[in-house]
Amino acid sequence: MVVERYSEDFQVPFYECDPSGTLHLSALMNHLVLASEHQLTNLDAGPIFMSTLGLGWVTTQYEIRISRLPRQHEHVTATTRATQYNKFFCYRDFWLYDSQGNELAFVRSMWVVLDLKTRRMVRLPDDLTKKIASEFSPEVIRFDRIEKLDWSHESVMAKTFRVRYFDIDSNRHVNNAHFFDWMLDSLPLDFLKGHAIESMSIKYDNEVTYGSEISSQAVQNQLITHHRIMNGDQLAADAIIHWR
Amino acid sequence: MVVERYSEDFQVPFYECDPSGTLHLSALMNHLVLASEHQLTNLDAGPIFMSTLGLGWVTTQYEIRISRLPRQHEHVTATTRATQYNKFFCYRDFWLYDSQGNELAFVRSMWVVLDLKTRRMVRLPDDLTKKIASEFSPEVIRFDRIEKLDWSHESVMAKTFRVRYFDIDSNRHVNNAHFFDWMLDSLPLDFLKGHAIESMSIKYDNEVTYGSEISSQAVQNQLITHHRIMNGDQLAADAIIHWR
Repeated sequence: MVVERYSEDFQVPFYECDPSGTLHLSALMNHLVLASEHQLTNLDAGPIFMSTLGLGWVTTQYEIRISRLPRQHEHVTATTRATQYNKFFCYRDFWLYDSQGNELAFVRSMWVVLDLKTRRMVRLPDDLTKKIASEFSPEVIRFDRIEKLDWSHESVMAKTFRVRYFDIDSNRHVNNAHFFDWMLDSLPLDFLKGHAIESMSIKYDNEVTYGSEISSQAVQNQLITHHRIMNGDQLAADAIIHWR
Repeated sequence: MVVERYSEDFQVPFYECDPSGTLHLSALMNHLVLASEHQLTNLDAGPIFMSTLGLGWVTTQYEIRISRLPRQHEHVTATTRATQYNKFFCYRDFWLYDSQGNELAFVRSMWVVLDLKTRRMVRLPDDLTKKIASEFSPEVIRFDRIEKLDWSHESVMAKTFRVRYFDIDSNRHVNNAHFFDWMLDSLPLDFLKGHAIESMSIKYDNEVTYGSEISSQAVQNQLITHHRIMNGDQLAADAIIHWR
């Protein structure tokens, strides 16, 4: 099957922007993933089809490169394609473009399919892969390794977040996009105001569910910040961000 | 000037839905207000025009009546009109319709204009009112009084929320829609899962800004819940909700 690109336009709404009028990173990721959902729905492989199989897509990793986050009221285009898949992983690229066609952001991502009952990952079923406008390749694509810190020896900034009812989606866990807000919100206000994200790698390790108290921890090293989300003793996600 | 209605369609995205796949109340209100922003922008009275005057719209009160909140992926229509205005207040109605034209929600609202420097309310300027497709009437419309409780004598449920960087919008205060999440999140999970909002009245008293720790307090009396958001000793908002 040929790898097909899919695009859709949207206008950045005021309620997805920060005090400077710039789109939240979490909202960017929501819009990109929504574009992939719409592509899959057009291919009859959307959420309704997945629920008939008792399955759901879960992201395991994102690599994000940002030239500029769009401003409120700006008209932009989200584009995506499922670049390739193997037995267990599907790789998907995303782009955000401004109205002149300039690339604002590029995201590589890795996805697995979860059995919604056992909450374990399963082999991608043929019924699904034949529909997703992508190509099989046995290759396992390596994503940037997120450098491990010795967190006990670092000067750690931390904020605690209680997982709220409205953070939980219909997959019954925290929508991945909330991790971006939690991670960024652990940084000082002045740093957030004065800097923009150049690139970010994030890896999801464990699901977070309603009522958990998570600790969003960060270490800053000049224009690099390291992040992890701890759910008790369990690592939920870690990330590294390069700022400009 | 004739009172003009304005409508726009949207599809409910997965990331604005709760675990049951139903649109968040906060997201409903965001979409309705966005429709009014787009109407005003089409009338050359949108946020850019307002910022040239150094002014911003602020909601003071909503009365909300809900038949049904839409489901994820559902196609719906947001409709609005500025029903009338007087010296200080503008009244605006909103509707949400499903794709068959059934009314899902109706909202009455009261708005004032804030001087963004002094953060005080000002008389609606003629430059603005001549553009907003509404009609002057000296009448002051009364909204439902929100019954005062003696909170010290009630069995109060409370949760604390720290105002996050991503809760603050380009008006440099908390987007009003967050108050809905804070209020609802103070209720027990089982209650939220088993009930739906029939109607809600909410009154905004004071702005909330970054870093504040607010207390979302609620008292349940069968199918009525009373809410208030306290910012220290200051009342930020109060509300009453009727459930079914």
